[in-house]
This record gives sequence, structure tokens and C-alpha cells, in this order.
Amino acid sequence: MLFRQLFDQETGTYTYLIADPVTGEAALVDPVLEQVERDLTLIRELGLNLKYCLETHVHADHVTGTGKLRELTGCQGIVPVQAKAQCADRFIAHGETLQVGSILIEAIATLGHTDSHMAYRVNGDRILTGDALLIRGCGRTDFQSGDPGLMYDHVTEHLFSLPDETLVYPGHDYKGRTVSTIGEEKRWNPRFVDPATGSLRSRESFIALMNSLNLPNPKKIQEAVPANEQCGKVTVTV
Amino acid sequence: MLFRQLFDQETGTYTYLIADPVTGEAALVDPVLEQVERDLTLIRELGLNLKYCLETHVHADHVTGTGKLRELTGCQGIVPVQAKAQCADRFIAHGETLQVGSILIEAIATLGHTDSHMAYRVNGDRILTGDALLIRGCGRTDFQSGDPGLMYDHVTEHLFSLPDETLVYPGHDYKGRTVSTIGEEKRWNPRFVDPATGSLRSRESFIALMNSLNLPNPKKIQEAVPANEQCGKVTVTV
Repeated sequence: MLFRQLFDQETGTYTYLIADPVTGEAALVDPVLEQVERDLTLIRELGLNLKYCLETHVHADHVTGTGKLRELTGCQGIVPVQAKAQCADRFIAHGETLQVGSILIEAIATLGHTDSHMAYRVNGDRILTGDALLIRGCGRTDFQSGDPGLMYDHVTEHLFSLPDETLVYPGHDYKGRTVSTIGEEKRWNPRFVDPATGSLRSRESFIALMNSLNLPNPKKIQEAVPANEQCGKVTVTV
Repeated sequence: MLFRQLFDQETGTYTYLIADPVTGEAALVDPVLEQVERDLTLIRELGLNLKYCLETHVHADHVTGTGKLRELTGCQGIVPVQAKAQCADRFIAHGETLQVGSILIEAIATLGHTDSHMAYRVNGDRILTGDALLIRGCGRTDFQSGDPGLMYDHVTEHLFSLPDETLVYPGHDYKGRTVSTIGEEKRWNPRFVDPATGSLRSRESFIALMNSLNLPNPKKIQEAVPANEQCGKVTVTV
């Protein structure tokens, strides 16, 4: 498998390129509009054929590159079920899979950051967690119909149940970390675990923590959410 | 092998953590002073014992974290032979190796960006190229006794001779790319290859290209070079 992690410095966003070097089929997960040219150059240089653009969710902090990539390459846009993005080619549900050459990608429901969110497990040994589980953190749950109780349930039931050695590739990191493992996050993620004891927090404790964060809105939210609901079409409203 | 790529956003610098999860022995390559706390937290959480800090070269764009890490952990500082860093615990020469648990790290001379520079090949399948070979680029050769002819010789003879599938982990990237391969750089690196034909440039063509770049000095050069010659000890001169 060819696997590339790509970073957008302005928004701290990770995009992932996954490809089968034998068949040349490729998928991009969470592309960023401003990085479409970089990503297409890499895809062309590697001799790949972009089959899918996958979204983990409707982002509030950056505009997706999926709309532009669909126009330029004819790839299919894949978004989680119930996402407000009617332009998608396919809505993917928990447990459903995509095939990229010999690579199997499985959607895993990880709601709570938004009311539609999928993590994507790749060939069983790694999972792209979007804005659900981050390295030593998690996505906020205070807008876009976020729900901390649902995030707790899905992260603990759908992600922490994976093998400890599963590699965790997040949708963002703001401290320059690129990868973690399920085992590490089950032991050291301070949102879900009391670091002093290593014990999982209770659902109530997690909800109280998330509801006390009092975060400012992302800079791009007014532009990004409506654009992403149209798969990355940027509409300027005066 | 445990292998972690870590990024310093301010200077676009990659640090690498390499460890044997069985013995717990670890090495950091090109740590950044401002990220020492992040790196030590990760090392502690993973239950590792920092044995070595390796420098690819005396950096001009950031201050190394090696000095502080030596003080805090007792690790050994390893620098290339002929580097002006008299405080090092060991000077490593081309072809010499280090053992980190079961992991073998081999120093490969890659001079030209500076007059002392090693790439570090890890377990044969990946190479940390410092500021010699970058993704679709290379380090500048116009200060710190840089020498474009020497860079051409060492990159083409010592790096491009490695197997095409060897993973290339650079010391910097400014476009969010994290990894490449020797095969990709032999085909698509515009400093060494004419992208239109895929043919290797001549030594003379490379030297002329490097001598025409006319780059501004790195922001931190006045502070970083003298500090790094003392293994990261920051001296404020009024």
C-alpha cells in the first residue's frame, strides 16, 4: 500500500493519500481546497488514478478540496450518511466498505463532533479518525449538532475496542505529532482517561469536561460550513 | 520498530523518534529546542529511555534540542565528523553505525549543504536525509561552507544508489509533505533531474542552478549557528 500523510499548515489539517501501487487506484481523505494543486501533482507524479475523495465529516475549519477534485478528475465524493452534502456521489454508513485496488477501507461511525462523522479504517492496521479521536485530544462538541455523550459512546465502543497496535492518524494536530496508536490513546488521552490513574473517565465526567471547554469559533466557520455542505463550492455572500 | 515523525511548525523542521519497543531504547534525530517538552512527554508516555540525540548537521534555521536533552536525560549527543560542535559525545563518520536496541542506524556522508552532514539510514528501509535531499528539493549550498558540487556527488552516489523503495524522510518540508522515496526523487526532484525528461542533470547544470538561487538568510541564523556549535546552548550577546 502507498500511504501518504499531507499537512495544511494554515489550518493544521491532515489529508491522506491511499493507493494501490499495482492497480494505481487512489483515494484522498479530507483534502483541503488550497492544497488541491499539491495533491494533484503528487498523484500525477506517482502515476495514480484518483477514484475517491472521502470526507470524515462536514468541516468547520477549512473548505474541502473534494468539489474541485471531482471537477478536475471525475473522482467520486464519499461522505458519511446524514451529512448535509447533497452533492455527494455516495453516502457511506457504519460498517460499509470501499475497495481501492486491493486496499479495503471500512467506515466506522464516530459521531459527536458533528451529527455525521465517519472514521476510516484502512486494511485493518490503521484508522483515520478525522475530528473524533485526536492525538491526546478529541474534536469539540459544542457546535454543528455536536454531542459529547455520543462522542464518548462511539470513541470508547468503536475505536477503543480496536487492537492496541492500530495506528491512529488524526484529522488535525497542532503540536506537530503525526501518528499515535489506539493503545496510547486508551492510556494517555486526557479527554477520555484520567492520566494520573490511566482509568477511563465516566461518561458523565467526559460530558462535563467537554461542556466546560468554552472554545472560540474556528476562523473559517462562516465560510467553511456552507461551502462544505456543497462539497467545497465556495459561495461568496455579500 | 517504533518510528515517529514530529514537526516544528515555526521552522518547518522534522524531528524523528526511533525506538525499539522491546528494549525501550530510543534515539531522537534533529530535535528542536522549543519542542523538547513535547518530545520528552512522548518519550515518557511510551516508556522509552533516550539513548542518543543525533544531529544531521549544524543547523542554521533552528536551535537544536540536544543540549537540553543531554542535561535532562543523560543521552549522548552524536554529530557528524568535522562538525564544529566540540561538546558532542561522539563524532560519527560515513559508514559507522549505532545500535538502538535491535535497530541499526548507519551514517551516510551527504555533505554540500554544510561541510559536515550525515544522513541516517534506519534498518535499511528508510533514510533520514536532513538538509541534503529534501522532497522535490535539496538544502541550499550558499553558506556554512556549502558546496554544490559536493552535494551533487554525495546525493547521486550515496543516496540515489539506494533501492528505489527506500523511504526518504527529510529534515524539512514547507508544503506539508511528510515522506517520499528514493525512486520518486530520482524521477521528480527538479534540482537533480530535468522533470521534462526524467534525466539526471549534469554536475555543472546542478552547480549553476544552485548558484543562481539567491536566497535570503534564514531568520534564526545569527542565533542558531553559534548555539548549535555548542550543542544548543543559547548565548545572548549584547
